[in-house]
Amino acid sequence: MEYKYLGQNLTSDKLKSLTNAERKVLCAEIRDKIIKTVASNGGHLASNLGTVELTVALLSVFDYEKDKFVFDVGHQSYSYKLLTGRYDRFDTLRTKDGISGFPRISESPYDSFDTGHSSTSVSAAAGIARAGVLNKQNYNTIAVIGDGAMTGGLAYEAINDIGHAKTKMLIILNDNEMSIDKNVGGLSQHLSKIRLSGSYIHAKHSTEQFLNKHLPFFGKPIINFIVNVKDFLRFVIYRKRPTIFDDLGLKYYGPVDGHDTEGLINALNAVKDIDDPVLLHVCTKKGMGYSFAEKNPSNYHGVGPFDVNKGVEMSGKESFTSAFSKLLVEKAKHNDKIVAVCAAMSQGTGLDLFKDEFPNRFFDCGIAEEHAVTMAGGLSVSGLIPVVGIYSSFLQRAYDSIIHDVCFMNNHVIFAVDRAGFVGNDGHTHNGLFDMAYFNTMPNITIMAPCNYEELDFCFEYAINDCEGPVAIRYPRGSAKFNKSIYSNYEMVARPHSIQKYGNDFVLISFGNMCDNALNAVNKLNDNGIKGELIHIAMVKPLPVDDLLVRLGTVKNVFTCEEGVLNGGIGETLQYQLLNKGYSGTVEVFAVEDSIVRAASQNEQFKMTGLDSDSLCNRIMDRLKK
Amino acid sequence: MEYKYLGQNLTSDKLKSLTNAERKVLCAEIRDKIIKTVASNGGHLASNLGTVELTVALLSVFDYEKDKFVFDVGHQSYSYKLLTGRYDRFDTLRTKDGISGFPRISESPYDSFDTGHSSTSVSAAAGIARAGVLNKQNYNTIAVIGDGAMTGGLAYEAINDIGHAKTKMLIILNDNEMSIDKNVGGLSQHLSKIRLSGSYIHAKHSTEQFLNKHLPFFGKPIINFIVNVKDFLRFVIYRKRPTIFDDLGLKYYGPVDGHDTEGLINALNAVKDIDDPVLLHVCTKKGMGYSFAEKNPSNYHGVGPFDVNKGVEMSGKESFTSAFSKLLVEKAKHNDKIVAVCAAMSQGTGLDLFKDEFPNRFFDCGIAEEHAVTMAGGLSVSGLIPVVGIYSSFLQRAYDSIIHDVCFMNNHVIFAVDRAGFVGNDGHTHNGLFDMAYFNTMPNITIMAPCNYEELDFCFEYAINDCEGPVAIRYPRGSAKFNKSIYSNYEMVARPHSIQKYGNDFVLISFGNMCDNALNAVNKLNDNGIKGELIHIAMVKPLPVDDLLVRLGTVKNVFTCEEGVLNGGIGETLQYQLLNKGYSGTVEVFAVEDSIVRAASQNEQFKMTGLDSDSLCNRIMDRLKK
Repeated sequence: MEYKYLGQNLTSDKLKSLTNAERKVLCAEIRDKIIKTVASNGGHLASNLGTVELTVALLSVFDYEKDKFVFDVGHQSYSYKLLTGRYDRFDTLRTKDGISGFPRISESPYDSFDTGHSSTSVSAAAGIARAGVLNKQNYNTIAVIGDGAMTGGLAYEAINDIGHAKTKMLIILNDNEMSIDKNVGGLSQHLSKIRLSGSYIHAKHSTEQFLNKHLPFFGKPIINFIVNVKDFLRFVIYRKRPTIFDDLGLKYYGPVDGHDTEGLINALNAVKDIDDPVLLHVCTKKGMGYSFAEKNPSNYHGVGPFDVNKGVEMSGKESFTSAFSKLLVEKAKHNDKIVAVCAAMSQGTGLDLFKDEFPNRFFDCGIAEEHAVTMAGGLSVSGLIPVVGIYSSFLQRAYDSIIHDVCFMNNHVIFAVDRAGFVGNDGHTHNGLFDMAYFNTMPNITIMAPCNYEELDFCFEYAINDCEGPVAIRYPRGSAKFNKSIYSNYEMVARPHSIQKYGNDFVLISFGNMCDNALNAVNKLNDNGIKGELIHIAMVKPLPVDDLLVRLGTVKNVFTCEEGVLNGGIGETLQYQLLNKGYSGTVEVFAVEDSIVRAASQNEQFKMTGLDSDSLCNRIMDRLKK
Repeated sequence: MEYKYLGQNLTSDKLKSLTNAERKVLCAEIRDKIIKTVASNGGHLASNLGTVELTVALLSVFDYEKDKFVFDVGHQSYSYKLLTGRYDRFDTLRTKDGISGFPRISESPYDSFDTGHSSTSVSAAAGIARAGVLNKQNYNTIAVIGDGAMTGGLAYEAINDIGHAKTKMLIILNDNEMSIDKNVGGLSQHLSKIRLSGSYIHAKHSTEQFLNKHLPFFGKPIINFIVNVKDFLRFVIYRKRPTIFDDLGLKYYGPVDGHDTEGLINALNAVKDIDDPVLLHVCTKKGMGYSFAEKNPSNYHGVGPFDVNKGVEMSGKESFTSAFSKLLVEKAKHNDKIVAVCAAMSQGTGLDLFKDEFPNRFFDCGIAEEHAVTMAGGLSVSGLIPVVGIYSSFLQRAYDSIIHDVCFMNNHVIFAVDRAGFVGNDGHTHNGLFDMAYFNTMPNITIMAPCNYEELDFCFEYAINDCEGPVAIRYPRGSAKFNKSIYSNYEMVARPHSIQKYGNDFVLISFGNMCDNALNAVNKLNDNGIKGELIHIAMVKPLPVDDLLVRLGTVKNVFTCEEGVLNGGIGETLQYQLLNKGYSGTVEVFAVEDSIVRAASQNEQFKMTGLDSDSLCNRIMDRLKK
């Protein structure tokens, strides 16, 4: 497909001057570019295809060179990127040093706020709008937020605030009836009712219909008057019965068809100058324009590279997620106290299998990590054993809930922490680098980090049978790299395990998934005549320090490596405990130093942080030379 | 006052059998006991006085020996404690090993869930209710939540979930138009409208009025029929126009006068058996029955001991909070980029002064810590310098927002972290022991912990002038104990400072507020012939390790002390960095070990954790003897 508009210098003025026909062509070009690029690089497809017309309409009414857009989560910002000067570099999407899959203020002056986690946009936009007033800058502030992200409490907190303070800003509610999975929650049902209570308002058609119907009765002069009144269209798209948003102090307009660019432009023009917080309800279809994605938007949320003509083929490859998925169902068959809790990601976390098998024992709380954890606390004080499956970076949101509603009461809640460590091309907002460090600070909690599927199983067995309080089991995105069986009895999970021993020059201690890189490093060092030992530890808290001291014996050089932050991490704690118990050698910690690990492949991210096997090997050699 | 009912064996059956007149007496006794006990021990007064009739009504309808109550925040649970077997020990309220000021499952089988932080009750109750179904236990679950706590996103997440899932439970919305300060937010305005849209429904009176009015028209038999229909009262208290709660899937009833016990009992009986999530809107008055507190509920939220006849006298004593309050106003006069953000606690954080002086530059976000932080991120990307004033333990809720919306973008946001360290009698949910450890893990952030008011001022000066990214300044509850001037130039805040030097036997490093205890310990050791040095460090991240190494010279024994958790804390990080840069002596860390530090005076909490001067002295002596 030859592009007529994409790739041109699309200034804001240029975008505003396009005709409706030209906009149609532009939308087709954007869609083509997005499909081709994501097919090549992987990325978020369904959400980006759903917002092409919306983005074109927004940039036809607002001035992207001056106005401020905040895209919630940011996985629908590809069209925006293509239209705001990043077409030429778009082929580098999600690659190292390339265009990010999310808005990044470091990437473009037209990105107003970094996003990645859900439900932040209204808050961030509120700050930007308020600063505009104080700074006497005359820009518009627009937050684009999905109905899924609206289930997050942060979005509600923000709406409650701006509704009261009457902060002028526009919220576009991008309602596609989905988060990653099908949406749950009372709000979702409320939105359904609104959608169903009247036919869609196609802003353009309504005007015409109004004219046709009423012309004979009113007469042309009056009609002209009505139509010229700025509020006419606003009247047409204003809902008479108050919505939840009105109750919270916003002005609600809609719903509007999110794939009718002309209608969208009319609606945006109508609400643009209202001096109050406005919510415009726009209905879109995830995956719009790519039939595979339209039919099965959940499978086209985040995808790896695929063949455009064939669509995404589901990988049958075993992963930590799929291993967890199966083992939990097995354990739940033998223990009816086990229940499962997720936050809008039953498929991503592998809990969909549990959901199918035990629908009554499964609770999807929506994008609401805090509620998921506190609710699990409630299940637990009542004698059940909730397994809470949430990605590491999203579980951060529940930090206080874990402490306050689980750890303080020593509740037997098991956190299945998926995507712990580097996640690759989604970039720094999605890396799971903090979990071990923050769990480490919490009272009563047991933390485990298995290195393969067998040990993952043992960790859950241990968590269910041998723990009475909170447990976190963290495991990485993707497949296990180290697949040797280390031991056969789950009770040994609490002990250190020698994986390979060549000699006493050093001991390298690896936690969880670092085992494979560490083993390769130890082997390479051996090839270079430096003979050490690799000890793997899955039990990260409490650390098996006494056992370890026995194993260390007279070894003078200890190294630790972990897929997490250095400050406050497990290596520092292990060093402290070893020395405090009398170990007299040196301990050096390899972990992620105070920095932001941006998008790249997982392997590149290991290299960038000195945690790949070559780097580990070199760092140990350097140290031993000293 | 002689008590006729309090102190008796108040079984659930006994409570249910009381007459209305007897209940009135019981309420008066409870109120008397609460006022006297809080006047003696300090505690939460206004919120507890507001819920006396509500609690009596709840326990007259539900069975506290079987049903499950979750009190949000828990600062309104005194009546409940007095009625559920804790009258005899109530004099120990908030003292070491005494009755907690909050619900504690470790204290009584009738406390269903520990609370302390806001907005958790609906989530916890949802878990408890769902577990009841799975466990086939036939209990009722009741969450009591204030309108202030309803501004927290967690409460919304929970309501959104149960409204969809139709989880049977009762939410009592205790609407007193306040959190600690006057409430803000769109929801608060929505509730006002509901209250004002019809006169209060006094459930009892409405029945009578209905009868009187309609008797002639309907005739007695029909009236009897109507009244005997279970749904009659429900009909009376059911609001026709949907509220925000109906929109989210709950059944809303109310409002009901929260000080009319009989009316409350009727209303509770009417909604008790509805098989859906129900919200009963109850209007109460904070401080009810104690005129000082009625007039000025904000000042009677949490109080120290006072004279019942005179009321609370405001302390004019300087504290870290009041020092911060004044210095921020001063700095804001000279720098119009400074704005302030708080989460419903302008008075507690001292930001009320700023609010009065610069109303346009002040933003109260409600009990919504996540939103406050993310909104501050938005202010910051727009060139302002937001100072976010939140207590340490409540800021925990914004952990992810701090990382994702502030640190990742290196936004210049200054966190004024009040109540960092031990807070005394409020107990473990309110201690600020995690902040240094969790900030320590975050990229880009600078962390400071001043030891007195002068240094607090220097820290803010440094944060405003010399930092470009996020900064956290943490300071304790109460007054500075160490008040000597250490240096005169704010730029020296980043360096270690020798406070007292007797010799080279050891160096004790204190962070922040630990300075005074540490100094006393060093003096005591000197009295015992052990001659060391005290070095104070306010700059907790990045640590001034190079400077420190120079100062340490040949000293072989280093100790650190901090008012925060050991695991992942600053001591561990300092040890790691010192040893990694070649320090060859030993480092021992004194901090709060993996444990829960329950209510006691601040001094007792220091003792309980080995951080008072005697303990520090003894611990250092013990170590040096080895």
